[in-house]
Amino acid sequence: MKLYELGPTPSARRVSIFMAEKGIDIERVNVDLRGGENLSAEFKAKSLNGRIPLLELDDSSYLCESVAICRYLDELFPTELKLFGSTPLERAKVEMWQRIVELQGLLPAFQAFRNISGIYSDRETCIQAWGKESRKRLESFLPLLEQRLSESPYLAGENYSIADITAYILLGFIKNLQISLQPFPVLQDWYEQTRLRPAMSQPKQG
Amino acid sequence: MKLYELGPTPSARRVSIFMAEKGIDIERVNVDLRGGENLSAEFKAKSLNGRIPLLELDDSSYLCESVAICRYLDELFPTELKLFGSTPLERAKVEMWQRIVELQGLLPAFQAFRNISGIYSDRETCIQAWGKESRKRLESFLPLLEQRLSESPYLAGENYSIADITAYILLGFIKNLQISLQPFPVLQDWYEQTRLRPAMSQPKQG
Repeated sequence: MKLYELGPTPSARRVSIFMAEKGIDIERVNVDLRGGENLSAEFKAKSLNGRIPLLELDDSSYLCESVAICRYLDELFPTELKLFGSTPLERAKVEMWQRIVELQGLLPAFQAFRNISGIYSDRETCIQAWGKESRKRLESFLPLLEQRLSESPYLAGENYSIADITAYILLGFIKNLQISLQPFPVLQDWYEQTRLRPAMSQPKQG
Repeated sequence: MKLYELGPTPSARRVSIFMAEKGIDIERVNVDLRGGENLSAEFKAKSLNGRIPLLELDDSSYLCESVAICRYLDELFPTELKLFGSTPLERAKVEMWQRIVELQGLLPAFQAFRNISGIYSDRETCIQAWGKESRKRLESFLPLLEQRLSESPYLAGENYSIADITAYILLGFIKNLQISLQPFPVLQDWYEQTRLRPAMSQPKQG
């Protein structure tokens, strides 16, 4: 197995942190995203969404989508740490929070960043007004996280899960949007605590 | 257990079809979405994302997010039909396709529809230009589905899965965006075949 990635992107970091949490070590290959290596025909033939991270399996087939890769590695390398939850209800709550943070947090954050900064304007149409609207929606989502983490040590409940990794990635990314955590003392504290986990000593995102 | 839903919305239909495929029958309550019943403080206290479908559990706690609800019901009512896959690799492929169809298909479709039609302009800022860009991205995604379904009977491989339900919902929804399946004969045929499944005789989406 071989993982194609680029350390600093949020999605690649999500898989890196997941693997570090579980102590999984496999071969890794860097892909030059800003240089457009992921746009080559060769790469697109491997990665169905044209994106990294991309996992090459031993039979030379491929898996893309960070959460699908995590789910596969989770089953292949079972450990005491159950990052997708331990019971049917816990697994459902992990999925629920994972989706909430992704759809209401990470996705608006990416759409805000790409549309405002125009970082990929060589390959996509950017709509400034949508970037600003996405940033606004993201800001109105943060109080929900603040409230949840003031009631519960982790998003899905008593146990740390992949939903927390996603939230950690989100909270690290929002500085790119000039959003401060200062109005959210619980989030700020939770972020600092989570940052101390050994798995977080992964390449920093840009 | 009680399911709060509104038959015709795509997310509620996803859960309805999933339940019908598995033969799951639980109490259902309709929520008046266009009238804004989901915006009431009472509903928001129950549904973390403020949306339907919403599953009320027997201990009076709640689960939202359609895929989280499906995953929970799938574990609670095990049947021969494994809509999330049967092996680690199959489960990873279901997750991958599920995410691809959702992130590159359903999400742009919803963003296109909401921003172009302004159907919820009483409660959200609509950006026409983003609606049109989303519609364009959705159109450029459909050839990937056409290609996949010309190689494989179902998205994740040999077996029907929740990813196919999501794709079916998408293909039913795009008529709202005046996108025709005519340029995609494989998709058109696959959609007609899938529509014959008994589980699809659910309330039609508007």
